[in-house]
Amino acid sequence: MSAPKKVVLAYSGGLDTSIILKWLQTEYGCEVVTFTADLGQGEELDPARRKAELLGIKPENIYIEDVREEFVRDFVFPMFRANALYEGLYLLGTSIARPLISKRLVEIAAETGADAVAHGATGKGNDQVRFELSAYALNPHIKVIAPWREWDLTSRTRLLEFAEANQIPIAKDKRGEAPFSVDANLLHTSSEGKVLENPGDEAPDYVYQRTVHPEEAPDTPEMVEITFEKGDAVAINGEAMSPASILTKLNELGGKHGVGRLDLVENRFVGMKSRGVYETPGGTVLLEAHRGIEQITLDAGAGHLKDSIMPRYAELIYNGFWFSPEREMLQALIDKSQEHVSGTVRVKLYKGSARTVARWSDHSLYSEKHVTFEEDAGAYDQKDAEGFIRLNALRLKLIATRNERVKG
Amino acid sequence: MSAPKKVVLAYSGGLDTSIILKWLQTEYGCEVVTFTADLGQGEELDPARRKAELLGIKPENIYIEDVREEFVRDFVFPMFRANALYEGLYLLGTSIARPLISKRLVEIAAETGADAVAHGATGKGNDQVRFELSAYALNPHIKVIAPWREWDLTSRTRLLEFAEANQIPIAKDKRGEAPFSVDANLLHTSSEGKVLENPGDEAPDYVYQRTVHPEEAPDTPEMVEITFEKGDAVAINGEAMSPASILTKLNELGGKHGVGRLDLVENRFVGMKSRGVYETPGGTVLLEAHRGIEQITLDAGAGHLKDSIMPRYAELIYNGFWFSPEREMLQALIDKSQEHVSGTVRVKLYKGSARTVARWSDHSLYSEKHVTFEEDAGAYDQKDAEGFIRLNALRLKLIATRNERVKG
Amino acid sequence: MSAPKKVVLAYSGGLDTSIILKWLQTEYGCEVVTFTADLGQGEELDPARRKAELLGIKPENIYIEDVREEFVRDFVFPMFRANALYEGLYLLGTSIARPLISKRLVEIAAETGADAVAHGATGKGNDQVRFELSAYALNPHIKVIAPWREWDLTSRTRLLEFAEANQIPIAKDKRGEAPFSVDANLLHTSSEGKVLENPGDEAPDYVYQRTVHPEEAPDTPEMVEITFEKGDAVAINGEAMSPASILTKLNELGGKHGVGRLDLVENRFVGMKSRGVYETPGGTVLLEAHRGIEQITLDAGAGHLKDSIMPRYAELIYNGFWFSPEREMLQALIDKSQEHVSGTVRVKLYKGSARTVARWSDHSLYSEKHVTFEEDAGAYDQKDAEGFIRLNALRLKLIATRNERVKG
Amino acid sequence: MSAPKKVVLAYSGGLDTSIILKWLQTEYGCEVVTFTADLGQGEELDPARRKAELLGIKPENIYIEDVREEFVRDFVFPMFRANALYEGLYLLGTSIARPLISKRLVEIAAETGADAVAHGATGKGNDQVRFELSAYALNPHIKVIAPWREWDLTSRTRLLEFAEANQIPIAKDKRGEAPFSVDANLLHTSSEGKVLENPGDEAPDYVYQRTVHPEEAPDTPEMVEITFEKGDAVAINGEAMSPASILTKLNELGGKHGVGRLDLVENRFVGMKSRGVYETPGGTVLLEAHRGIEQITLDAGAGHLKDSIMPRYAELIYNGFWFSPEREMLQALIDKSQEHVSGTVRVKLYKGSARTVARWSDHSLYSEKHVTFEEDAGAYDQKDAEGFIRLNALRLKLIATRNERVKG
Repeated sequence: MSAPKKVVLAYSGGLDTSIILKWLQTEYGCEVVTFTADLGQGEELDPARRKAELLGIKPENIYIEDVREEFVRDFVFPMFRANALYEGLYLLGTSIARPLISKRLVEIAAETGADAVAHGATGKGNDQVRFELSAYALNPHIKVIAPWREWDLTSRTRLLEFAEANQIPIAKDKRGEAPFSVDANLLHTSSEGKVLENPGDEAPDYVYQRTVHPEEAPDTPEMVEITFEKGDAVAINGEAMSPASILTKLNELGGKHGVGRLDLVENRFVGMKSRGVYETPGGTVLLEAHRGIEQITLDAGAGHLKDSIMPRYAELIYNGFWFSPEREMLQALIDKSQEHVSGTVRVKLYKGSARTVARWSDHSLYSEKHVTFEEDAGAYDQKDAEGFIRLNALRLKLIATRNERVKG
Repeated sequence: MSAPKKVVLAYSGGLDTSIILKWLQTEYGCEVVTFTADLGQGEELDPARRKAELLGIKPENIYIEDVREEFVRDFVFPMFRANALYEGLYLLGTSIARPLISKRLVEIAAETGADAVAHGATGKGNDQVRFELSAYALNPHIKVIAPWREWDLTSRTRLLEFAEANQIPIAKDKRGEAPFSVDANLLHTSSEGKVLENPGDEAPDYVYQRTVHPEEAPDTPEMVEITFEKGDAVAINGEAMSPASILTKLNELGGKHGVGRLDLVENRFVGMKSRGVYETPGGTVLLEAHRGIEQITLDAGAGHLKDSIMPRYAELIYNGFWFSPEREMLQALIDKSQEHVSGTVRVKLYKGSARTVARWSDHSLYSEKHVTFEEDAGAYDQKDAEGFIRLNALRLKLIATRNERVKG
Repeated sequence: MSAPKKVVLAYSGGLDTSIILKWLQTEYGCEVVTFTADLGQGEELDPARRKAELLGIKPENIYIEDVREEFVRDFVFPMFRANALYEGLYLLGTSIARPLISKRLVEIAAETGADAVAHGATGKGNDQVRFELSAYALNPHIKVIAPWREWDLTSRTRLLEFAEANQIPIAKDKRGEAPFSVDANLLHTSSEGKVLENPGDEAPDYVYQRTVHPEEAPDTPEMVEITFEKGDAVAINGEAMSPASILTKLNELGGKHGVGRLDLVENRFVGMKSRGVYETPGGTVLLEAHRGIEQITLDAGAGHLKDSIMPRYAELIYNGFWFSPEREMLQALIDKSQEHVSGTVRVKLYKGSARTVARWSDHSLYSEKHVTFEEDAGAYDQKDAEGFIRLNALRLKLIATRNERVKG
Repeated sequence: MSAPKKVVLAYSGGLDTSIILKWLQTEYGCEVVTFTADLGQGEELDPARRKAELLGIKPENIYIEDVREEFVRDFVFPMFRANALYEGLYLLGTSIARPLISKRLVEIAAETGADAVAHGATGKGNDQVRFELSAYALNPHIKVIAPWREWDLTSRTRLLEFAEANQIPIAKDKRGEAPFSVDANLLHTSSEGKVLENPGDEAPDYVYQRTVHPEEAPDTPEMVEITFEKGDAVAINGEAMSPASILTKLNELGGKHGVGRLDLVENRFVGMKSRGVYETPGGTVLLEAHRGIEQITLDAGAGHLKDSIMPRYAELIYNGFWFSPEREMLQALIDKSQEHVSGTVRVKLYKGSARTVARWSDHSLYSEKHVTFEEDAGAYDQKDAEGFIRLNALRLKLIATRNERVKG
């Protein structure tokens, strides 16, 4: 790979990406464009601009954007249509944000004539894969620079030395090492590393940042009603809202009731297991509600097919293949299933749990007439079940007869 | 089908199966053998014996058995190795009990020279299918009698008239109609029908019978440690126990903390949707713990394969195909995966939720050495990630290049 | 089910459906509308019109239609995009025609105010299921009459007696029983029953009707070039043609070279095995060519996903679920994959086989630059493979290390 | 990676691996152990011994073994139980041989105290992955040396210079470059590269080495009867034979009739497409026969499940994951299905095609009684089909009713 001339860096404004910024300038002597996104991580973006300027980035090379609506509308919501869970439990909060960042990096590279993009993910994790697969899928000619895999700043000490040597301001609380590492966006907060590295040790309370401890959550349950149209949430308690507003509101409600905590050991794409603590308050409520509305509006055949491909879909997102033909094919299948997934679900929030308690819809497939224990006025002929069972049993009988004969 | 001469009836001792017993005698003039199983439903079996005798069943034709250990060891535990959930949420508590009952019905038919078996499931539900598919798979020559699909006792009034006309004692509380229908065994209690038939109405509190309301559960969380060997729970809090004892203990703990409630609209095999309320306290804790131990002991490839076939496995059990070659094939796959699923999980129970907070095992695949944020002494070479990503990206780049060319 | 007043009958003009026509009139006293479709079965339709008139059907109640283009365009081609094979071998020639017939039956019922449809499929086969599931899916209120399941004309003798008693003309060659049963359309000819009922006996030569015996096929191979656009064949040997014309032409070429014969024992949806002899000359060539063009235009991820869902897709069509949400969802996935499946394939036909020998496309993903054994000018860095392998191996190493430790 | 001290080399005796042998000695100064396996590639092994001696390998370090029986019994046959085809067409002839070679390399390393293994696969292909994943899975501490990824002998000229400089004898026909590259074993011969690199050019006739051209095959078809026990072939034309003898005999028969040729563009695991020409004469006959015997002995549920996991199984073998838990899990599932796959199949061989024409078995599930068009003496009640269809249709009717309502 020839040296990059102009690099678009995914820049948070924090110490690590500031060091990367400087390192790109010094190592490659290249022009740096910074991209800082508001994904709902809950931090102000102005300091990032000021810091980029301080590090010598030209104003026209500083991109700061609020992408929350795009994030929820085009990434989070499509994924939730699938009820996606990685390894049965993880709501993919970090995974789903990376493709959007890469998409903007590549677009800004095209706008600014940059030939490379750079990110601050390490060589051990999944995020490097997600950033880079997305970037290459969107621009096969782009160069990707992953400083953590290249440089020799392999200890905290050396990083700080480099920062000091390069006049990068170091916040006081960044001098010592953080007891764990955090990633956050509108969908979740994830924590991993350090104090969490032994999966046999319980996660300390202070790891949780976004949700109230269930024991400290209100003693009174709270109901929330979520309305869906074609698989996407469109209103809360009857009030229509934008995608990002809905997720923000559900985060507030879920967080208040201690909903959405997960302590997980998962399998990284790069081959090792890691332990993470996730807080996905709004997403957990949303998944529960989406399942609730599907229960009455989605046909069995459609639902079972969705269930059967879900693990593969979730794995693709986890592994970084959002911009792949197979993810798009699965999305086409999933979206097709959502045409009638419209209606309203009531979810009860209480001390860490979110449970569907009622759901209703004009698109409901539930037929009280058919299911009732009461007289059904001929809606269903119980005698039909006999033929149904007998033909379903036929092959089993033929097997049993064969086995008798062979053993006989 | 020629008339049966001797019938083995799945007999609970309750009003409905007593009416069936009498109806079989009067309708077919056949000898009746009763089979009453203790599956952990929480009812005494002695009354069933007395009632059978009262209805004229010969002592040698009354089979009353405690099958709890067989139920948990040979049915529940194998199923839990798969983390089986029907439609993402249902722990299959009723489904998994039916094959065992059919197995004993068919075995007792062979012992007693009976040519038929009979059950008390209606023509609208799944249980008829489960009973009958199992029976036919185990004895292709057996006759199956399903009185609810045959007789004309189609209203509560006519049933009671038949009972009175035949001197069948009717408990006072059975005169009126129950507000919902219940099935129970050691794994769960399910409730459906009547007051639950509108899925837009919340289930009344009195429907729940086996679990404390979360709001009334203890204010202090409780930890429980479950030890697994090859995928099956073998000890609780360090004390080795039999399968049924383990599930009994977990039911007690889970029930006390309001764990395992589910309000679900599901798709029946016979084609309609139905709404059920399930309480699976011990099973919910067990599933959580089993996932916890798999997190550290099961390889990614093995786990993802298991996840991908789980919906099909659960569907087979739900639909009544326990004794089918495809369920046995999937079981072989699942069991193969569990060889190292041994170790201990700590689960925190609190007001309706059960969450893994720690897990450890001699069989762990978790490698702190590889995952650590700290210096890893060469366990993992971050440079490897570059080649890994580049080759995973190659096909995506070739697609992007092709698309450029074609559009160009 | 109340008696039908007006029935649309799938009418071939043959003896069996003529008997059904008469039986509907006499049994139900209902008005009969006949629908006779040209699906490419190779029979003239005029006799069907005359015979219907003879049996007293009003001219406005006689529907005779050439649906070949619709058949290939909307049913055969979408199915071939999936490379669908039932049980690894069967090209679904009968299965794919039934939904179209049902669709027209239901549409004609709406046009003519009929309340029922009727078909001539027996109670043992798959076709009854396919006809009826399609009909119910398209009109949930329609009645379906399946005379073979209802009447008492259960022997050849009684059928002929009924025909004679009702002045239904019987062709001389229909007096005796046919040695096997045939179904044909533009996609295939299937033969089953009678002389074919023992799967241990070879099918007699005279069973084959549409393809030359391979031993009698030309001694010189013939090449054919098929051009695809977005997964569908659009031209043969450079000549653009309509869907039905393409299949007709491929049938001619394939048939001449003895291509597309299959002797199969398959599993019917109703639970038994049956033996069929299929001739699918054009379809066999088309499948081979479609695979050929996908080889260079379809990405690995897309192709493997398609392969993994194909058996399910084929099973759905075989079982009669063409008009089901899950088939439509899978179709959405498949169609999404075909956007770049455009190009040309050369297939060699010779004495029973059809093999791709060359393929080329503007949409090709094949990169000679990457794959070459020669110097590749940096297209591919062999060193990347090391990291790729090492990270793919990591989990396998961790397993091996664990196993050493546990056994140790 | 520290330098290896003693290396076990997969040694063919050919020029390339002889150069590797020498390069290992000179580059690493390490002791070399050679392993030469007779996998049925059709070459004598004695020259390999002599050449190894000539290159200075100690006699006790020369391992030459006939592994044909192990190859067929433990690798080929288990794979054929699955009817494994990669990308619908490829019989995996190369893929399935690599794990066996790696297994012996690792075992010989343990016996000889070697710390490394080496192979002659390039950095562009799949074989490097297969060799190395297998090696790492069997010994997580082993070093793997892949000279083609390391050295600078990147042109034919430099290779020959190295050979001459190191007194490695060069056969006259190796001076020029081969027009394509070949791999062979008892299952297949594969050819790729050079003249085959343009998939739009037909493969020249001289590429085919193991099968007669169909046009030159006998004008008279030949029948072969293959007997299976539990899924594995055990006899040909009534004569019991060992696994390798069976495959050898089928190769002879298939090859004589031009059976088993395949011209394929496939997707390599490393991300690119490649074009190969495969000849798998015996394997093609075996697959056809195995399918034939499964048709009558394997239940629909079992067969469809096998079909659905086959693509994943084939992909695992292709990608080199033979020694992975997920392949072993799938194998357990597959093997479970084969318990009754016993019986005999007659296959007709003629000018390039192999087709099942008859099959019979004591374990047959085929029931002429059930399927017959004739009177079936009550084996099957056609009325059962009505209930079967009506309940299968119920959900489709509910969908249609809902859609009417919503659109209404």
